[in-house]
Amino acid sequence: MSAPRSSPTPAPSSYKDVPTRSVSVDGVDFVYRQLGPEGDGVPLILLHHLTAVLDNWDPRVIDGLAARRRVITFDNRGVGASGGSTPDTIEAMARDAVLFIRTLGFEHVDLLGLSMGGFIAQVIAAEEPQLVRKVILAGTGPAGGPGIDKVTALTLRDVLKGFLTRKDPKQFLFFTDTEHGRREARAFLERLKERTDRRDKAISLTSFRAQLKAIHRWGLQPPADLSRIRQPVLVANGESDRMVPSENTLNLAARLPRGELVPLYPDAGHGGIFQFHDEFVARALAFLEARPDT
Amino acid sequence: MSAPRSSPTPAPSSYKDVPTRSVSVDGVDFVYRQLGPEGDGVPLILLHHLTAVLDNWDPRVIDGLAARRRVITFDNRGVGASGGSTPDTIEAMARDAVLFIRTLGFEHVDLLGLSMGGFIAQVIAAEEPQLVRKVILAGTGPAGGPGIDKVTALTLRDVLKGFLTRKDPKQFLFFTDTEHGRREARAFLERLKERTDRRDKAISLTSFRAQLKAIHRWGLQPPADLSRIRQPVLVANGESDRMVPSENTLNLAARLPRGELVPLYPDAGHGGIFQFHDEFVARALAFLEARPDT
Repeated sequence: MSAPRSSPTPAPSSYKDVPTRSVSVDGVDFVYRQLGPEGDGVPLILLHHLTAVLDNWDPRVIDGLAARRRVITFDNRGVGASGGSTPDTIEAMARDAVLFIRTLGFEHVDLLGLSMGGFIAQVIAAEEPQLVRKVILAGTGPAGGPGIDKVTALTLRDVLKGFLTRKDPKQFLFFTDTEHGRREARAFLERLKERTDRRDKAISLTSFRAQLKAIHRWGLQPPADLSRIRQPVLVANGESDRMVPSENTLNLAARLPRGELVPLYPDAGHGGIFQFHDEFVARALAFLEARPDT
Repeated sequence: MSAPRSSPTPAPSSYKDVPTRSVSVDGVDFVYRQLGPEGDGVPLILLHHLTAVLDNWDPRVIDGLAARRRVITFDNRGVGASGGSTPDTIEAMARDAVLFIRTLGFEHVDLLGLSMGGFIAQVIAAEEPQLVRKVILAGTGPAGGPGIDKVTALTLRDVLKGFLTRKDPKQFLFFTDTEHGRREARAFLERLKERTDRRDKAISLTSFRAQLKAIHRWGLQPPADLSRIRQPVLVANGESDRMVPSENTLNLAARLPRGELVPLYPDAGHGGIFQFHDEFVARALAFLEARPDT
């Protein structure tokens, strides 16, 4: 009763239509989505932010990257529709992500980590130098970076503010409070609604709390030894990031042995790579495709 | 340049269109809306719930009551577009409400208090027996009532859950989690959007925190002496109130000298009087119009 293997199915060309797949990682189902050419190129694994599930990636960023790279988004353990319990350290989240990557059969990947995903990407790059070829870090900072221990209080405050003002708190957390920033926020929030079918499950309160704890610990750690990260790293952010203050981005670029800084996006915050999706995609692709590639 | 006093302006017939007025209470502007016949009848002053501003009253309840009674909604000190700072005790909120009522020139009023507004109404009724004729208490409880000290934790939890699931937390806080309850929640939330022009200002985080503190204190007080409330009191609620557990409603009806219990609304929660707006309006009007009226 199996379908013929050769039956051609047209590949979905956009993130809003791509099916959600599932893979069993040591007995726990991890959900993921894959888009872009499945050639010999090194796949790009995306690591997401606090509370985010598959549907929180800006489809413009995914579609832009997937025009030339194989892109894989996933929910880490306990997040969204993935099974298991979310651990409360960044290091354990990194181990889970590595398990997922190896389960898919990859021995060489690029990483793009946003915010908390950027913390996780740094740990993977340092711990698994053979696995990771290049890294892109957005809206993130090193362990012990300034202001990262304030993420919990700021998030709770802005979620309450969003409730009281009937606005999506991501507007305050990801964008600047300027006329331009508010307009960009609205456009971004509309893009997140483009996928209407087979959307991901929301993160649970339990997993959210575990993530907050992990981020808090990361913020309180002694300054990380970034010289352990030997890969080329592209670092990007808005100039006015309130969540992971933008000075963390400059700090990463200055201390990473092979760091490369994208000039901070003007009138942009934590969601700078979403706000400047065209510019970011072009820069990220150029970085990933530059030679030498290791 | 003053307009002729006698110029007739057609009275707005619904809460969604009624203008917002302002009155200076000891130098601080309080905003309010007034609807219904301005005859000799005793006006009904409405006291609202945690976080609520003028636009949080269900227009069906206001329009229904205003068909036969003069109805006045207002923002207490520091709330919405009213000036000043929100105090952090129910007793101080009650004093502010009395100042507002007297500033409007009323010497005899009825009160309808929902949730925190019901706490305030109880204090006013006990402290100002000459001012208050009849009282309606909805979704509320006596000082020291069971579970009231949990309101802060429950509210924060459900606001976070609403953020994560992209739902209005009032769905969880005011309605039952049944198919029927969820449908009723959606209908209520749509009704709150009927007014599109000249909406009220949202409550500030500072005022919200003061209200949470006041509610917490109310919940931790020793059991109130309800025998001090000598007025007729109609008590209503849903049977499954998670915020101010429904047993508080039964407790009020049992302990108030002239308490009258509306059978708890089935498959309904804290927002029971909104969900059953037709039934509630009919019962409330009958109660307010019953003789003898003191």
